[in-house]
Amino acid sequence: MRLTKQAFVQEKILEAATNLIAAKGFRAVTINDIAASLGYTKSVVYYYFKNKNEVLWQIFKRIHETYDSMLTSILEQELKPHEIINQVIYNHSLIVMKQTDWTTIYSRDENELSENQQKLVKDFKRDYDKKIEAVYDAGVKAKDFKDVPSFIALSAFMGVCNWLHNWYHEGGQLSAEEIAAYCVEMLASGYRAE
Amino acid sequence: MRLTKQAFVQEKILEAATNLIAAKGFRAVTINDIAASLGYTKSVVYYYFKNKNEVLWQIFKRIHETYDSMLTSILEQELKPHEIINQVIYNHSLIVMKQTDWTTIYSRDENELSENQQKLVKDFKRDYDKKIEAVYDAGVKAKDFKDVPSFIALSAFMGVCNWLHNWYHEGGQLSAEEIAAYCVEMLASGYRAE
Repeated sequence: MRLTKQAFVQEKILEAATNLIAAKGFRAVTINDIAASLGYTKSVVYYYFKNKNEVLWQIFKRIHETYDSMLTSILEQELKPHEIINQVIYNHSLIVMKQTDWTTIYSRDENELSENQQKLVKDFKRDYDKKIEAVYDAGVKAKDFKDVPSFIALSAFMGVCNWLHNWYHEGGQLSAEEIAAYCVEMLASGYRAE
Repeated sequence: MRLTKQAFVQEKILEAATNLIAAKGFRAVTINDIAASLGYTKSVVYYYFKNKNEVLWQIFKRIHETYDSMLTSILEQELKPHEIINQVIYNHSLIVMKQTDWTTIYSRDENELSENQQKLVKDFKRDYDKKIEAVYDAGVKAKDFKDVPSFIALSAFMGVCNWLHNWYHEGGQLSAEEIAAYCVEMLASGYRAE
């Protein structure tokens, strides 16, 4: 019971911090701002987080956990390579669009992390990329995919998904799900009519 | 003769400034740094540029002129919609890869410009995007392109091209031209083998 309440408060703090940091940038936000936005005193935030760096690092960890569990749950199913790739494009796009604050922080504030934390971010990205590239290589081997180097294919997938962050906003003419489906279609079979 | 020499010196200063600003960020670079990197005194730089903001704005203007003249020269030819789109993807990718300093500055330092300059950047981007979207709409109308909303297609094109900035470096296993050709292929007909 106590643990559950602690986890709940920690999540609330992280959520508030994510909003503030995304809006103002890491340097402009103080522990006091985060506490005040929830009606807490600084000491409550310090009870859960050693310092501001720890808050940022926990945000990065949540982001990693979310992308990793999405990818893992797709890979665990018995799917064909193209089904895996299409599901990754779809779900990666959806996270970008539904968690715009995360994408802002992840692409802008990485250099605020410690050297060791930045190394862990790099390791995470490499691991995520390598898993997708391995699926791509399997698709090429099965002659189901174009024989494009897998790091180029990966770059195209990531480019299409992550670029959505530059313009997507909730309440536009298409839902995030419709946009994600278009991304899959464009990447799987291209812009030209069949 | 005098004008030519002036233009030459101005270009040299802009080039040096571009390298420095891309490497260190706009705020960390002084007019003195720019001058010193060329063996000039500050007063030479001030002869050509009113202040540091003027240097940055001239860099943004060169970037706009380069993308605009690339797009204009493609549109002036008598090409089919898919030939136009493929050439835009190819050439936009090439500029991203060959002018990495520009892409760094353009994506990072826009908020260092004045409000009015930022409005001009926004206008430029809208104009560039609208021209490409019009070509896409023509391709859809001719039933040669998939019936995807043109702003989504544009986002996919820009995502693939601009994402290259995150990893491309000269001297890798593929040339910029080979990578650009793969981008065209992926976007035109998708990752799946025919």
